[in-house]
Amino acid sequence: MSTLPLPADAVQLTRLPLERATQLPGAAFTDPAVLQWEIEELFQGGWICAGHVDQVNERGKFVMVEIGGESVFVVGDDQGVPRAFINSCRHRGSRIVDAPEGAVPRLQCPYHAWSYDFDGMLKNAPFTDELEEFEPGCFGLKPVRLAVIEGLVLIDLSGEAPSPAEHVGVLAEHLARYRTGELKRAQRITYEVEANWKAIAENYSECLHCPGVHPELNRLSHYMSGEEYTGPGAWCGGSMTLNENVETMAKDGGHLTRPPIAGIEGEALRDVLYFAIFPNCLISLHPDYAMLHTMWPDGPGRTRVECEWFFEPSTMEREDFDPSDAVNF
Amino acid sequence: MSTLPLPADAVQLTRLPLERATQLPGAAFTDPAVLQWEIEELFQGGWICAGHVDQVNERGKFVMVEIGGESVFVVGDDQGVPRAFINSCRHRGSRIVDAPEGAVPRLQCPYHAWSYDFDGMLKNAPFTDELEEFEPGCFGLKPVRLAVIEGLVLIDLSGEAPSPAEHVGVLAEHLARYRTGELKRAQRITYEVEANWKAIAENYSECLHCPGVHPELNRLSHYMSGEEYTGPGAWCGGSMTLNENVETMAKDGGHLTRPPIAGIEGEALRDVLYFAIFPNCLISLHPDYAMLHTMWPDGPGRTRVECEWFFEPSTMEREDFDPSDAVNF
Amino acid sequence: MSTLPLPADAVQLTRLPLERATQLPGAAFTDPAVLQWEIEELFQGGWICAGHVDQVNERGKFVMVEIGGESVFVVGDDQGVPRAFINSCRHRGSRIVDAPEGAVPRLQCPYHAWSYDFDGMLKNAPFTDELEEFEPGCFGLKPVRLAVIEGLVLIDLSGEAPSPAEHVGVLAEHLARYRTGELKRAQRITYEVEANWKAIAENYSECLHCPGVHPELNRLSHYMSGEEYTGPGAWCGGSMTLNENVETMAKDGGHLTRPPIAGIEGEALRDVLYFAIFPNCLISLHPDYAMLHTMWPDGPGRTRVECEWFFEPSTMEREDFDPSDAVNF
Repeated sequence: MSTLPLPADAVQLTRLPLERATQLPGAAFTDPAVLQWEIEELFQGGWICAGHVDQVNERGKFVMVEIGGESVFVVGDDQGVPRAFINSCRHRGSRIVDAPEGAVPRLQCPYHAWSYDFDGMLKNAPFTDELEEFEPGCFGLKPVRLAVIEGLVLIDLSGEAPSPAEHVGVLAEHLARYRTGELKRAQRITYEVEANWKAIAENYSECLHCPGVHPELNRLSHYMSGEEYTGPGAWCGGSMTLNENVETMAKDGGHLTRPPIAGIEGEALRDVLYFAIFPNCLISLHPDYAMLHTMWPDGPGRTRVECEWFFEPSTMEREDFDPSDAVNF
Repeated sequence: MSTLPLPADAVQLTRLPLERATQLPGAAFTDPAVLQWEIEELFQGGWICAGHVDQVNERGKFVMVEIGGESVFVVGDDQGVPRAFINSCRHRGSRIVDAPEGAVPRLQCPYHAWSYDFDGMLKNAPFTDELEEFEPGCFGLKPVRLAVIEGLVLIDLSGEAPSPAEHVGVLAEHLARYRTGELKRAQRITYEVEANWKAIAENYSECLHCPGVHPELNRLSHYMSGEEYTGPGAWCGGSMTLNENVETMAKDGGHLTRPPIAGIEGEALRDVLYFAIFPNCLISLHPDYAMLHTMWPDGPGRTRVECEWFFEPSTMEREDFDPSDAVNF
Repeated sequence: MSTLPLPADAVQLTRLPLERATQLPGAAFTDPAVLQWEIEELFQGGWICAGHVDQVNERGKFVMVEIGGESVFVVGDDQGVPRAFINSCRHRGSRIVDAPEGAVPRLQCPYHAWSYDFDGMLKNAPFTDELEEFEPGCFGLKPVRLAVIEGLVLIDLSGEAPSPAEHVGVLAEHLARYRTGELKRAQRITYEVEANWKAIAENYSECLHCPGVHPELNRLSHYMSGEEYTGPGAWCGGSMTLNENVETMAKDGGHLTRPPIAGIEGEALRDVLYFAIFPNCLISLHPDYAMLHTMWPDGPGRTRVECEWFFEPSTMEREDFDPSDAVNF
């Protein structure tokens, strides 16, 4: 992870080897001032994951995310290329889109009907002809830096973060192996967790708590199985191995009812990979599907989690396609 | 508007001509620190509208308002003259009145039964006889500066604002023409709006959004009709003209079922005047009634609005008086 | 009361004689920054009452309290001696106990199953064998200073307050006379009050408001009866005298259905003593029972109150024991 611009009085955090890990002070999980710093420096100060390209690869398809009072939307332009903008009309600041996701025929502000092209240029602004010094070319939607890596839609509100390839690092290879850029979304669920976003990420990243807290998960893959992956990039994670006679993660015992993702074969059919990409993205790669969580802090002790399931397009086209075993688990 | 004591780091706001208007930064509408500054400097630092004299012109009739944690009430004294006081017993600080409006036979604290004259003097304070250095004359209710202009009850918590006549300026002449000081209130409605108080005032002050957002209003008066009024005083506003065949603002098409306000005749019968008096008062003058909104911030993104309708006393005395067309609209 | 480390710009508070008392500024009851100061300097800076020893005098019986984001529990150790600890596992900071009170067979963190002795030493920490420089002896639960005085469980998070005996002072003698260390608890009720904790303590400490606000109480003991007690210690209070024909505080008129507390006789049978022990403890001593309130601020205008009733063990063992008259009142 790149060095972060920490507050002057902060203890310098360095990447300790796990064997020498220690605890953050409690305030790191409860103090609103710490969260405010995290919002400004981490969530608004570098790459965060806004979702998956499958929702923004057609003209007018969009997702909207909010972070620290800033609303941003990503929308497919006339060529179906994703673009990201600050979700605020340049006239009176109203929101252009007002739903977590969807599709719009055009970008038009509901307040005074200013409209914009899908590339953000101001197209029509009623009653501005007589204004002095009003240059429509200066009133396009404010663009936000965007990158798509293996299907993950990343945005950088600061505009100054290192390259997205550096951010994702070698994790991109694992994602590519599971074809995350080609998969299609089957379902999305939103829920609120009464916990700090870091606690959720930490909890996701270790399974030593599994035997006591998640016995049903422990029946499917042993909590000490698998290995930790390493390599460049702002991520951590690794594999777990499905128990014998288990073929996928489902409550009924886990028989694989879907073909695996193309290219996943042999030993890989017994692996589930879990990765956390700094700061707000958790992605798990199963033999037959991928699961993406994005985390959105609502306060030091409250986080909204968007959870999405992705499958092979050919699998989703099958008449008997049923993602419910993965979703319900 | 008089020059305001802005924070040292604020951009100096000056009254730009509309043709050169620009946007306030988003934080002006969302930052709690900005609202706190507005509360202290604007709402507690100068004249605000607390309501209409019709509610406080008899002995014991009162209205209570709250702004920035301070509670104030205006009450008719023994002669029916409105007086304003901090709503806090000088003993343990309990509220003297505890309703948005009403009538009380006397001013008595419910906690330890201290009582006050309607001019605020401490009248009876049980068990204070043996106290040292206790001078009842020093424990009257704290008065708040008050003025009534054309029926509008104005209070100045700072006690140091310029004269109320300077604040209202030439708008007083328009109010006088519609006899706002003589009208009686028919109805009051309270509602909460999920918006910054300034956004409500701005929205009230322009109708370019009307064709898209309020088609039913646009049918009654065209959004480009009327003219802007100008002149001294901390207000803005102007007229709109009712469409042909429309006589008043009502959903059924707008036939005038009441006589107009005395003195409103000729071309004025086709006008509706809309004024915003800085900071919290919005008043609209219709041929046959007046409508008063006062705004009370509950947070940067939340405002309580008190809405009241006023009619000619002679109209209200008629057996068939029915304000519902105006209220429902 | 000992001199407190007040903020530099605070008015120096000294113990004025009641005859010269004056009002605190309103912000003392409404400003979150004042409460934050009180939490740090008063609630976390000296002795507070965490409850009664009857709940923590057996192995594994515990009470948990929270103050200013810090959770503390008091638990009976292997010998039934109360001990207090920060309620946070030394591994990932999870809570060890997670209920206001109860009993646990062992101290084990629910997250990763670390377990501790009842004296706080780390007993078992799975998967820590390979950690470098991991010294189990350094990872015991953090102890909190604790004292039990006449049954009141006092904790001092600062660890630096003057002696508990100095804090309670001569009030201990009154408590001893009512055998508060021997009484057993019959009932506990929790409620939220929409008031500042100091206002509750002040209201508890005077009865001049009783005739107007509590006529049913005034029927049992006259609001001007009794006398103020004085003496060393961070407390205030005194007696009130039951009216003639009233034997205890109950809505039905107050006939004593229980024997008095052992040793209470003669004139004392007509007294009820009310004491406030700084900062969060209110205790009332009736002829036949004691009532303990502890206050827990939830914000400047909100306080959680734990209310408990205590009786003679021999009284509680009687088949016809019924505390409902005391509780309902």
